[in-house]
Amino acid sequence: MHPLTRRAALAVSAAPLLLASIRASAQSDPLPSWHDGAVKQAIVSFVSRVAREGGTDFVPPAERIAVFDNDGTLWAEQPLYFQFAFALDQVRTLAPQNPEWSGRPPIKAVLDGDLAALAASGERGAAEILTATHAGMTTDAFAASVAGWLASARHPRFGRPYERLVYQPQLELLNFLRSNGFKTFIVSGGGVEFIRVWAEKAYGIPPEQVVGSSGSVRFRQAGNGAPELVKEPKVEFVDDGPGKPVGINRFIGRRPILAFGNSDGDLDMLQWTAAGPGARFAAILHHTDAEREWAYDRQSHIGRLDKALDEASAKGWTVVDMKRDWRSVFPSEP
Amino acid sequence: MHPLTRRAALAVSAAPLLLASIRASAQSDPLPSWHDGAVKQAIVSFVSRVAREGGTDFVPPAERIAVFDNDGTLWAEQPLYFQFAFALDQVRTLAPQNPEWSGRPPIKAVLDGDLAALAASGERGAAEILTATHAGMTTDAFAASVAGWLASARHPRFGRPYERLVYQPQLELLNFLRSNGFKTFIVSGGGVEFIRVWAEKAYGIPPEQVVGSSGSVRFRQAGNGAPELVKEPKVEFVDDGPGKPVGINRFIGRRPILAFGNSDGDLDMLQWTAAGPGARFAAILHHTDAEREWAYDRQSHIGRLDKALDEASAKGWTVVDMKRDWRSVFPSEP
Repeated sequence: MHPLTRRAALAVSAAPLLLASIRASAQSDPLPSWHDGAVKQAIVSFVSRVAREGGTDFVPPAERIAVFDNDGTLWAEQPLYFQFAFALDQVRTLAPQNPEWSGRPPIKAVLDGDLAALAASGERGAAEILTATHAGMTTDAFAASVAGWLASARHPRFGRPYERLVYQPQLELLNFLRSNGFKTFIVSGGGVEFIRVWAEKAYGIPPEQVVGSSGSVRFRQAGNGAPELVKEPKVEFVDDGPGKPVGINRFIGRRPILAFGNSDGDLDMLQWTAAGPGARFAAILHHTDAEREWAYDRQSHIGRLDKALDEASAKGWTVVDMKRDWRSVFPSEP
Repeated sequence: MHPLTRRAALAVSAAPLLLASIRASAQSDPLPSWHDGAVKQAIVSFVSRVAREGGTDFVPPAERIAVFDNDGTLWAEQPLYFQFAFALDQVRTLAPQNPEWSGRPPIKAVLDGDLAALAASGERGAAEILTATHAGMTTDAFAASVAGWLASARHPRFGRPYERLVYQPQLELLNFLRSNGFKTFIVSGGGVEFIRVWAEKAYGIPPEQVVGSSGSVRFRQAGNGAPELVKEPKVEFVDDGPGKPVGINRFIGRRPILAFGNSDGDLDMLQWTAAGPGARFAAILHHTDAEREWAYDRQSHIGRLDKALDEASAKGWTVVDMKRDWRSVFPSEP
């Protein structure tokens, strides 16, 4: 056999093997929606270093705590926080049962579809809308209203259920971390009772691993003697900015070794995580993809990323560029 | 062979088998420190019912949440709460660095060993002692002081480290629950930052599964720019009485199916747990054993068990009688 023929024959006979090996490698890629590059490499390298027993960066499984911001980090947050979209829809749903609402300017603005008046009501107006829709009911009734809304509401731009606007690459990252012994937590400025309703189904994160902002809750015996928990119109804890490391301490009681955020509200959490001893991973998702999602940072009202972007650059934290680093953004539709 | 001889021969040849079977059964008893009886049977029956797939009482693993009070339920609480024993020792340890303390009556009473004066200072005095020893330091420094105390302090009656006054039967129960897919939580009136230091080693319960009372914590940048969390002299949350179901909702976000307490401070948690749908288990540890531990209930200043004992009887909750139901109380000394 001529050497070239032989090489060709070998190549042909090896082809199925080669193909199988490529397939195996594709299957074993834990992050298929992440483009190959420095960012993906940094993630995989960190995880394998802390999980390698006997290695200098080894971290015992119990200490492999990973924390993720939610809005803008695990799911989208434009054109307004999804929890606020829920609140606006609830105002419209509940208005017939609450005729007295028509005398309250921010609520009237929502019912009239008068966005200018709503914007003019500012933070106090937003707080009034959140209180009206998030308090004065049992925790069970509130959870049921969130579940009902998620089942029917659609995002104005994408026409999808909000739960289908989670980020596919982050779902893969959460799974990759868990399969390497990490315990994954949400640490969100959003309301903890809102997120817990759907986080387990959407992210595989159970209620007890969700840290968030909360209102006061009161325990009482209902008329029929059954005990119940009632949501009260009083903010109890704001899990944003310096509240994030405080919330981590309060709920988790252990400093994370990995933190992932997307805005200045995550900066303290990233600092707290990065400043611990041993191997650390701090990452920021930079929204750079107006075509597939949105592009915003320093000037945005929602998810402003300014100081944290500077600090990431100064401290060498990982900055994920959505457009460059993500092969896909949302899960493909079934 | 004579029939009797044959029977004897058979008996002799069967003896090793029989012995092996007894040994296997002893090894497979998950609760060897619990006497056989109605209480042990109720526990084993409940756990196997909720864990049996396809059974009418089946509960998915994610919902198998078990909550335990700590003081008097998982470890002893006499002659005074161990956390308060820590605080008194800390007053003595820290007094030389805090000469101004001598002007504060409750602290002076501790330093003088004047228990009558300390008692006279009442709840305000106790709060002053707790504040002096539990605030004004970083969370890391506090955890180190607790660990240091545990390593050296000995219980006045038993001469053991306090961590060795955990209840052996409860350690077995926690393990039994976990091996049946339960997630075990502490829900304690004690300080969460105190318990988290040693709960993982003592009970196999990680920090993120400890719910407790807490003081405010503030995030700040230290002089050297390193971020730190500082404990402030302000009570933030009291995880006792109606605070227990509130704490469960806040930290766990899911109603437990099993709750275990020992005092009236656990009553609301037991009610909240027992009132949920499906199979439920509510249990109270009744301290009835003055010889091996202590006997106290309706009249006790610490761990008073009065209303909850009546309600347990009315509702058919499980009441564990320490003297009758526990083969041993504390772990055997190494």
